[in-house]
Amino acid sequence: MLDLGIFALLGGVVSLVVAIILSYLVVREKVDDEKMLEIYNAIREGASAYLKTQYKTISYIALVITVLLYGVFDYYPHNGVPYISIGFILGAVASLAAGWISMDVATRANVRAAYSAKHSLKKTLDIGFYGGMVMGLFNVGLSLLGITLLYYLFNKDPELIVGFGFGASLAALFAQLGGGIYTKAADIGADLVGKVEAGIPEDDPRNPAVIADNVGDNVGDVAGRGADLFESMSAENIGAMIIGIALTAVTGKEVFIIFPLLARAVGILAAVLGILFVRGDVEKNPFIPLRNGMVATTIFALIGFYILIIETIGSIYLYYAAISGVVTSVLILLITDYYTGYHYRPVKEVAEASQTGPATNILSGFAAALESTVLPVVVISVVLIASYYLGMAFADEFGLNLHIGGVYGTAVATMGMLSVAGFVLGLDGFGPIADNAGGIAEMSGQPEEVRKAIDKFDAVGNTTKALTKGYAMGSAGLAALLLFQAYLDIVHISFLDLLQIKNLIGLFIGALLPFFFSSLAIRAVSKAAKAMVEEVRRQFKENPGILEWKVKPDYARCVSISTLAAQKGMVLPGLIPLLGPLVVGFIFGADGVGALNIGATFSGFILAMMMNTGGAIWDNAKKYIELGFFGGKGSEAHKAAVVGDTVGDPLKDTAGPSLHILIKLINTFSLVFGPLFLVYYLL
Amino acid sequence: MLDLGIFALLGGVVSLVVAIILSYLVVREKVDDEKMLEIYNAIREGASAYLKTQYKTISYIALVITVLLYGVFDYYPHNGVPYISIGFILGAVASLAAGWISMDVATRANVRAAYSAKHSLKKTLDIGFYGGMVMGLFNVGLSLLGITLLYYLFNKDPELIVGFGFGASLAALFAQLGGGIYTKAADIGADLVGKVEAGIPEDDPRNPAVIADNVGDNVGDVAGRGADLFESMSAENIGAMIIGIALTAVTGKEVFIIFPLLARAVGILAAVLGILFVRGDVEKNPFIPLRNGMVATTIFALIGFYILIIETIGSIYLYYAAISGVVTSVLILLITDYYTGYHYRPVKEVAEASQTGPATNILSGFAAALESTVLPVVVISVVLIASYYLGMAFADEFGLNLHIGGVYGTAVATMGMLSVAGFVLGLDGFGPIADNAGGIAEMSGQPEEVRKAIDKFDAVGNTTKALTKGYAMGSAGLAALLLFQAYLDIVHISFLDLLQIKNLIGLFIGALLPFFFSSLAIRAVSKAAKAMVEEVRRQFKENPGILEWKVKPDYARCVSISTLAAQKGMVLPGLIPLLGPLVVGFIFGADGVGALNIGATFSGFILAMMMNTGGAIWDNAKKYIELGFFGGKGSEAHKAAVVGDTVGDPLKDTAGPSLHILIKLINTFSLVFGPLFLVYYLL
Repeated sequence: MLDLGIFALLGGVVSLVVAIILSYLVVREKVDDEKMLEIYNAIREGASAYLKTQYKTISYIALVITVLLYGVFDYYPHNGVPYISIGFILGAVASLAAGWISMDVATRANVRAAYSAKHSLKKTLDIGFYGGMVMGLFNVGLSLLGITLLYYLFNKDPELIVGFGFGASLAALFAQLGGGIYTKAADIGADLVGKVEAGIPEDDPRNPAVIADNVGDNVGDVAGRGADLFESMSAENIGAMIIGIALTAVTGKEVFIIFPLLARAVGILAAVLGILFVRGDVEKNPFIPLRNGMVATTIFALIGFYILIIETIGSIYLYYAAISGVVTSVLILLITDYYTGYHYRPVKEVAEASQTGPATNILSGFAAALESTVLPVVVISVVLIASYYLGMAFADEFGLNLHIGGVYGTAVATMGMLSVAGFVLGLDGFGPIADNAGGIAEMSGQPEEVRKAIDKFDAVGNTTKALTKGYAMGSAGLAALLLFQAYLDIVHISFLDLLQIKNLIGLFIGALLPFFFSSLAIRAVSKAAKAMVEEVRRQFKENPGILEWKVKPDYARCVSISTLAAQKGMVLPGLIPLLGPLVVGFIFGADGVGALNIGATFSGFILAMMMNTGGAIWDNAKKYIELGFFGGKGSEAHKAAVVGDTVGDPLKDTAGPSLHILIKLINTFSLVFGPLFLVYYLL
Repeated sequence: MLDLGIFALLGGVVSLVVAIILSYLVVREKVDDEKMLEIYNAIREGASAYLKTQYKTISYIALVITVLLYGVFDYYPHNGVPYISIGFILGAVASLAAGWISMDVATRANVRAAYSAKHSLKKTLDIGFYGGMVMGLFNVGLSLLGITLLYYLFNKDPELIVGFGFGASLAALFAQLGGGIYTKAADIGADLVGKVEAGIPEDDPRNPAVIADNVGDNVGDVAGRGADLFESMSAENIGAMIIGIALTAVTGKEVFIIFPLLARAVGILAAVLGILFVRGDVEKNPFIPLRNGMVATTIFALIGFYILIIETIGSIYLYYAAISGVVTSVLILLITDYYTGYHYRPVKEVAEASQTGPATNILSGFAAALESTVLPVVVISVVLIASYYLGMAFADEFGLNLHIGGVYGTAVATMGMLSVAGFVLGLDGFGPIADNAGGIAEMSGQPEEVRKAIDKFDAVGNTTKALTKGYAMGSAGLAALLLFQAYLDIVHISFLDLLQIKNLIGLFIGALLPFFFSSLAIRAVSKAAKAMVEEVRRQFKENPGILEWKVKPDYARCVSISTLAAQKGMVLPGLIPLLGPLVVGFIFGADGVGALNIGATFSGFILAMMMNTGGAIWDNAKKYIELGFFGGKGSEAHKAAVVGDTVGDPLKDTAGPSLHILIKLINTFSLVFGPLFLVYYLL
């Protein structure tokens, strides 16, 4: 069966090669503008400095955990072969590397996208999109290669690879959380004093926090999101492979285990082919080429899945399950578009409510955010049931256990949903690149028409960012449920009785964790933003020359405030997904942890949907007003909408996306420590 | 065993008699102030008019459901005896009657408390407290009498009484929801234009929405909360009695079924005795006498429970379980006090964050609100486990099934927690009475010192309101879990496997319902407030004489806007707790509904805690600033805090308290319709 595994390796290699080609296409563009390069260097330095600090912190934490893992799991049971700890280190390193490279390419793409806007919009789109796709393909490829290699190195036992998932997950949580705190502290601090108090525009070089703000976009949206999706890929692959063990054991066919790897390879091919279809009239609407690419990728993924499933497993039912996953991703994108788009009720209503002040803006946005959780939950519920029944039909066809078949059906649906992940990640990366290009154009004092041109891309970037966040959350929910099923396999739980008090309490505590986590994350941003506001105010006060363009503000000071705040703020919430299952596990045992996983997954899913969509609604309500509605820019309604936007920022860029990782990390952590809770527990 | 039942009846009668005596003590006070009486009459008329409209709407809905219940449950199975539908009607009528009487006494107490403040603070406290206690005792007494009588009339079969609980629950949801929308629409509308735009003080008679605002306090906080707690009592009693059936069946002792009724009677006696201890220096701090009364009630309840349990069941373990419930209520009060009090970190931090504007105020408050869910969940978890194990010890002692004993232990803990409910309800009623007394004093132009005196009570009222909301939510959570256990008994589910896809999805949908419900409730307030703002603005614009004291504003118009908005806004969210379980039940059967109940209970509990506490934190952060911190009244920080307060209002007074009822209603509804889902379901 190694022949099939080769396709997985090939897929990974293709992904990396195309990523390298795309990086070359970005980097070869020359930038011939002193001012732009100066700003670019400042952003790059800030971002690198931050990542270095952050990676150091993460390394310390990872080191402690490695020792722990080695002592607990590897020293004795595997005859001295440290599968779990090696996997853990590799997972963490790979995740951080993916984040680093993504950010490196993104910062290079920022300035080139800004510069090219002077000459050709088509080129700006290409650079932004290629930069994003590097992030997408690099993450997918590295995850696929890592897991495939470990699978063959670790005796073809997927249960030994869980360390890789844990490492990726842990590194991702800190990367996203730290990056999220950093970017929002800088953003809010810059806006509150700069825009609101001093009355200078966004991205004005007189604002001391402006470099920190632009650095933040890179460390939060790029490095953070990159790690997030690297982790999603890995979690989904490992979870699905473990679920496949049961089918392989019965049928003797290894394909059930490595099918997830092949599915990922198909997704990579689809994304690479999709790149060729990013065509259309950029001048008219830069979103059209991106949408065309997305549609093409989806079609290629559907074709690829058909060939893959029919050729390897041979069950049309599983293909239907895969389709249900693809349909889910389309539906989630449509729902997110409805809730966050200008043309529909939610954003308009919030914009309208801004006329009566910030309080009604917040209330109306909060109501819309709560409401936006409904349809995604229904869609995920329907796809779970549909794919479960399709899986049962497959099992029935092959004479297998119906429940195992059903679970495999949900796993295939998840693979279907994640098959377009490479391309979606590319779109996601496009957002911060366009955003930063706008910032660089503004700060380097480009003429009006260049800034207007980039603004168009920025608007498209906001759309793609919101859409991909919905998608990331939907797939995180499915991936977490996969991990949960894998957990059950590892600890040999075949039913989980909710009427037992320990499970009931486990569920309750699990449902609580995302709330606790979010509170700490938002509080960290809130405190850091306050420190930033005070620093910016201090600089303006002590150096009145700054506002008169006479003195350069002290950018570095703001960068270091954000850096420090992010380091301090990310540790406490980062412990929740570790300590939560650990405490519950040692008190209530493996069953209680199973219930905790479900509670955390569901409540985290709903809460993250609420925060991500809510934040995007507030953001776009503000932008809608800026288009000239309800008084336009500078009106009272606009001021109210700015408040809503600021409130939404840490929800959609810090807490919300970190929750994606949180629920997967809780599940992955349980996957690793589960066997322990089978033996040691109190009640 | 009828002899024991007599104690329950006696308890109910004592409760009503003392309530009548207390009403007399309130009503006999003469009010000799034209202006006050005029305002009083306006409020009374508005409140009565509103309740009449609302009760009409509820009657129509109840009528449809009665017919449905009769057709589905009563026509055939009980040989033509319509137990369920009769119970349903009685429950709904009793709940509405309790709400009406509470409100009637409260409005009378309002004006008398305001008037007496001219002469004697002691008298103001007495009137406010007596008015509140009428509400407390009337609700507890009516619920106890109703259930006790039905028990004896309905062949001593608690399962036939579920209709009563359903009726009470449904009426309560609409009362709380409608009242909550009414009061906050009026409050926000009055504040946004009056305080913020026109710059006139709160409760200024020139504000057209001022009467609607004061009416709102009565229909929302009094009639609504009265119905809420009437429903809690009833739900807890019925649930615990059904759980007792299993023990009675094994032991042959009826006491296990009627024990909840006796426990309630003990609670009533404790509350009545507690009234006598409401003493202390009112001038110094009006909170002290109330606290003394609360402590005395708690001690009496502990003594009473000891005698009751030892004399009837004879197990010290169950007494310990009851103590764990009482301790829980104390802990929840302390936690709520920490999160909402001036002297602690959360409120201070939010007040401090107001200095950098409304956005940081909202963020910091939201973080605190999320955080405030942690300790209550931990406390409830601990009490559930402790009481479950104590119940098992009791079962072990008597040679009974351990699980049944454990569940009974949790039921006894719930009874322990609710034993002080009568007194707590009284405290809860004190809040809106003090608030309204302040409003009447303001509007009737009382001298400074009278208003200052009442302000003291108002502050105490805010404290008691926040505390009792925490208590109400804690007990609602426990009561909902009791109902869930009763549901399992009725549909004969002995285990609920979370790994079955239908249960997993049921849980997910259940967790979603509180979010969906809250979104509709907040949106209703938001829309109604907007209509109110426009009306007040219109009146100020078309009649400039209003602000110059020359023309009287059109109060009635604002009252009718709130009334209409509440009627329209309450129907849609009110359908969620009915349609949610119905749809899931017909698709996934009784198991799926069981999982839905748990999902809704847990997510509703956490969400309600977040909203209730969050709202109180914002409210008190504003008050803290008004004490002179961070610039005091009129500063930028204060303006930011006013925004936070407005955002918190519908969370803490509309959505939050309605969620208490929502989770009980979902469970009660399942209790009634459960048997149906055993027979008719799709998957």
